[in-house]
Amino acid sequence: MIYKMLDRYSVRTDLALEEKERFESDHVEVPGVILEEDYDAQSEIRITKVKIETENGAKIMGKPAGTYLTMEAPNMSVPDEDYHREISKKVATYLNKLMEGMELPDRQDLSVLIVGLGNRQVTPDALGPNVVDNLVVTRHIVKEYGKYAMGMEHANQVSAIVPGVMGQTGMESVEIIKGVVDQIKPDLIIAVDALAARNTRRLHRTIQIADTGIHPGAGVGNHRSGLNKETLGVPVIGIGVPTVVDAATIVSDTMENLIHSMEESQILKGVGEALSTYNEAEKYELIKKLISPHLNGMFVTPKDVDEMIKQISFTISEAMNILFNSEVPA
Amino acid sequence: MIYKMLDRYSVRTDLALEEKERFESDHVEVPGVILEEDYDAQSEIRITKVKIETENGAKIMGKPAGTYLTMEAPNMSVPDEDYHREISKKVATYLNKLMEGMELPDRQDLSVLIVGLGNRQVTPDALGPNVVDNLVVTRHIVKEYGKYAMGMEHANQVSAIVPGVMGQTGMESVEIIKGVVDQIKPDLIIAVDALAARNTRRLHRTIQIADTGIHPGAGVGNHRSGLNKETLGVPVIGIGVPTVVDAATIVSDTMENLIHSMEESQILKGVGEALSTYNEAEKYELIKKLISPHLNGMFVTPKDVDEMIKQISFTISEAMNILFNSEVPA
Amino acid sequence: MIYKMLDRYSVRTDLALEEKERFESDHVEVPGVILEEDYDAQSEIRITKVKIETENGAKIMGKPAGTYLTMEAPNMSVPDEDYHREISKKVATYLNKLMEGMELPDRQDLSVLIVGLGNRQVTPDALGPNVVDNLVVTRHIVKEYGKYAMGMEHANQVSAIVPGVMGQTGMESVEIIKGVVDQIKPDLIIAVDALAARNTRRLHRTIQIADTGIHPGAGVGNHRSGLNKETLGVPVIGIGVPTVVDAATIVSDTMENLIHSMEESQILKGVGEALSTYNEAEKYELIKKLISPHLNGMFVTPKDVDEMIKQISFTISEAMNILFNSEVPA
Amino acid sequence: MIYKMLDRYSVRTDLALEEKERFESDHVEVPGVILEEDYDAQSEIRITKVKIETENGAKIMGKPAGTYLTMEAPNMSVPDEDYHREISKKVATYLNKLMEGMELPDRQDLSVLIVGLGNRQVTPDALGPNVVDNLVVTRHIVKEYGKYAMGMEHANQVSAIVPGVMGQTGMESVEIIKGVVDQIKPDLIIAVDALAARNTRRLHRTIQIADTGIHPGAGVGNHRSGLNKETLGVPVIGIGVPTVVDAATIVSDTMENLIHSMEESQILKGVGEALSTYNEAEKYELIKKLISPHLNGMFVTPKDVDEMIKQISFTISEAMNILFNSEVPA
Repeated sequence: MIYKMLDRYSVRTDLALEEKERFESDHVEVPGVILEEDYDAQSEIRITKVKIETENGAKIMGKPAGTYLTMEAPNMSVPDEDYHREISKKVATYLNKLMEGMELPDRQDLSVLIVGLGNRQVTPDALGPNVVDNLVVTRHIVKEYGKYAMGMEHANQVSAIVPGVMGQTGMESVEIIKGVVDQIKPDLIIAVDALAARNTRRLHRTIQIADTGIHPGAGVGNHRSGLNKETLGVPVIGIGVPTVVDAATIVSDTMENLIHSMEESQILKGVGEALSTYNEAEKYELIKKLISPHLNGMFVTPKDVDEMIKQISFTISEAMNILFNSEVPA
Repeated sequence: MIYKMLDRYSVRTDLALEEKERFESDHVEVPGVILEEDYDAQSEIRITKVKIETENGAKIMGKPAGTYLTMEAPNMSVPDEDYHREISKKVATYLNKLMEGMELPDRQDLSVLIVGLGNRQVTPDALGPNVVDNLVVTRHIVKEYGKYAMGMEHANQVSAIVPGVMGQTGMESVEIIKGVVDQIKPDLIIAVDALAARNTRRLHRTIQIADTGIHPGAGVGNHRSGLNKETLGVPVIGIGVPTVVDAATIVSDTMENLIHSMEESQILKGVGEALSTYNEAEKYELIKKLISPHLNGMFVTPKDVDEMIKQISFTISEAMNILFNSEVPA
Repeated sequence: MIYKMLDRYSVRTDLALEEKERFESDHVEVPGVILEEDYDAQSEIRITKVKIETENGAKIMGKPAGTYLTMEAPNMSVPDEDYHREISKKVATYLNKLMEGMELPDRQDLSVLIVGLGNRQVTPDALGPNVVDNLVVTRHIVKEYGKYAMGMEHANQVSAIVPGVMGQTGMESVEIIKGVVDQIKPDLIIAVDALAARNTRRLHRTIQIADTGIHPGAGVGNHRSGLNKETLGVPVIGIGVPTVVDAATIVSDTMENLIHSMEESQILKGVGEALSTYNEAEKYELIKKLISPHLNGMFVTPKDVDEMIKQISFTISEAMNILFNSEVPA
Repeated sequence: MIYKMLDRYSVRTDLALEEKERFESDHVEVPGVILEEDYDAQSEIRITKVKIETENGAKIMGKPAGTYLTMEAPNMSVPDEDYHREISKKVATYLNKLMEGMELPDRQDLSVLIVGLGNRQVTPDALGPNVVDNLVVTRHIVKEYGKYAMGMEHANQVSAIVPGVMGQTGMESVEIIKGVVDQIKPDLIIAVDALAARNTRRLHRTIQIADTGIHPGAGVGNHRSGLNKETLGVPVIGIGVPTVVDAATIVSDTMENLIHSMEESQILKGVGEALSTYNEAEKYELIKKLISPHLNGMFVTPKDVDEMIKQISFTISEAMNILFNSEVPA
């Protein structure tokens, strides 16, 4: 089908869930990939766990093997303090679950480096920097005064950095972070980034937490190297929120809709068949014509992106403040 | 044709030039609308003047009668200080020409209020606020010390305001500006706003200057009331730069491309004909299905929108600083 | 005494409480001024009410007649969410009390304009703009959909504006606000501003709420016209937080300390007497020499002013969100 | 004298020039320290070179041995584009001179890391981050496309980082920068920081360029470790602009003025003598009483600090853009 071609050439999603859905829509089972769902009717929060278990599954999915938790809530971008507190707690819980599956040292005296990826100057890409702005960092205090001075038996050391983007620094994010990691040797890195989704309905309503870090192609800007245990030498959890859809994806979706409509239409029933007679080369030519080259490097985002980024970045900061800075009973 | 329908239901451009081009592409003359073009090969700056002379022309164009100057330069978003200085001077010159056509008091002792429309928190909508940030305002100095204290025979009084957007203020921009105008009674208002274009190629490469002010539907956010002599009691010049394309427009353009491709295709030649048998209601239903409701309130913008906004807002500020703050020889 | 002279020539405080304390330190009763204190030992919050009842009292105090509530809490600048929530509620309560003393229309269907005074670009002056950033504005929603659409029997209309400072706008804040007030005709204005204190201990630990609005000389920047019922035609409540001390005040305080030390010193006991032989003119000359002219336009502020402004502006926003946007039982 | 005591306990300046002046005012020669002055009457720019040649000189001056260039210009904070361009060129020239004295590889193919120290959220401390915002970084382009693609025979690789402050990151700046340096191995580091001066007259009118880097105590915030060849393994040039004066310094200066006045006064002539009878311990007690503990961590800065920071950070960025990004003739 023509939209398969479009998919291959242009559709991009950073959500493992959406990648999985593509195969489901074709009724294709992906070997080595497990899906679990959980829905809380009261809070309307849906948790989906995509577990990529094999290298083959990773290849088909185009994402590294590992666990991807997706939390979806329709009201995530609505300003309701209590509701956001609830989501923050859930995020903290799921972060904690992921951490239990990783080989970490004593989890009450962890050194965690939180990385806010993205460009502070471009609103939909400012999620990471905004999350860092609201974090309570403690590493310098614990190092200076010790945990007892803080009245605590255990104390995590939280540090944070906003590396900026290549156009501002002349460096890849991974270069900066690798350097910092070599200096402060954290036990765990949590990298927060704005993601690209395939479906506009997911924007600002979805949080993905993955134990695979951040991989190339994720994010609004393109990171060319992944942030993961291989590149940084330390386990990396990636937290992402889809804030944009690639402009080419929007177009591709509409094409798909058009063709479905044609197939269903009595009058146009011949069109789908006609299209199916196209050979690969012809289809590729058609696609090249249709997707304007000017759409490269363009993204789609909602007008109220500022409010959404503000809400959801605060929710994620709070999740980490809860997880790492609440006193652990001795 | 189906794309006509799409046009009617969804395509939006704030550029008079693009509105005019639509009719040209259909080989339709618009009565009461005059087009003049001027191209400077060396600087690659193209000036187009669309003059809507009659009420009928205004109705067809969907824009108020008046003069719309459009300056296009391919390198407008490239950081080259000297080139930007040249564009600033051109903008100053054309602003001045427009002002000569308006009934203004002595043009060396003008009181000008510059309005930076848009939302500072959403990068592609921050053009107006950014322009105001770089302006040299002088009204308070002239009022306090007089123009002689400034060593000048004549002195314009430049004031500036960033009214914010409705979601931040609870007020329409026009309410705030009307109030300020009633207080300080300027001779002229210049309102700067980010615009929506139809074509991604025009983003950040085009400046439109119009003696008709800002009209409803212009801008990235929707202003519900126009800013013009009728609403404010003072002549209003609108300066706009297209920074986004409506998501629905992108889709519509691609649909158009698809249909053209189908018409040209031997295999698919039947489709165009089939579509032409659709009646109005059927077409409208098809369109409604195709344009996802989730695209409402979504826009398309380039990833490097931050750099572009920075460059072009500085260029426009400089134009006004040159025009209003350079000493006029006695 | 010499420090009296210094007081007269240079010391400035925007806090009625500090003005009152000056007279107390001299054991002087100010006629027409009443002081009430209330201290909550558990929350460590001290409420002081200075009521200036007569024109004579106003003249002596250098502040307009009216009620000035001062809330002091030592931990106001410490990031503790629950504690700040408690302070927000107290501020809401005291705002409400002040409003009960004013002649306002039905207090469940009020139109309130909140004004964020000050310069967003200068950290200690950014209190007002930061407060507005966190407000929930509702006027546009109530106007568009009506209060029933919001599921409420009553609905206040909250609007907000950040007028900027004269160096950015070329206009006095009062000109902009007067214009807006004439357009939207609110029942009440609440103006938030950063204040100058006399004592560094009060910085970021004190909130003053006054039914007299904002008067000339208040704030970090100098507003030349007051914001009050006389200038705006609408009652104005002023909310202020001291964020700076005038540089000249710091110097004056130290001089005072020096002279006290000298008086207490056996060795230096002659100095105080010597100083007291100075006549007025001689004293004034001495003062002029001592206070460096370069201190004009300089202020003193703590290094962590960013954290303090962030905390306290959020607390004040929340107070107004609680007061105006919580549903009132029918 | 008492003000000597105050000096010892509280006065702080990051300017080598001011440190030198202190000794001059006491007619004390500092061995191992050379001073050269140059004044351009037309541009009113004064260049002072303080060269600390011996370890003994360094000890007395409280600054590492090396060369400190100070450029003073009365109009540095006035917005005049041409004048700032001139200063930018001078800064570029003097940077270049300092670099000639350092052992650097081929100076047309340098890799330079520019570090913007300080806190973006506190206006007078935002100099470093603002300088980085206006830099043209090129390292990523040269690395990706090579210098020939840029149409240049030689091409410097400029990279830049804003490390943030400890309260935001939980890390010392030196930890972050050391990490980055180990990764990208630049030939030279240029660190830009806001400084504390002793004299308010120097604020925003002075640029210090030193081949000794940034040493502890410099800057508005306190860096606890220096940035220099010893800590980073790479030569470091420090560029600093005084933007604040310590609050305690202001007080100390006024005390000095008071005592001078007393000495000159007929009536008070006994006071100076009386003070001179104080022994060390008594003097120290007096000082402790006089300098309020609440002045710790407080600084003095002008109200128009926003405009000054904007002007001067742009001037410094331009200096580096001129020095590193203008094509070098083959």
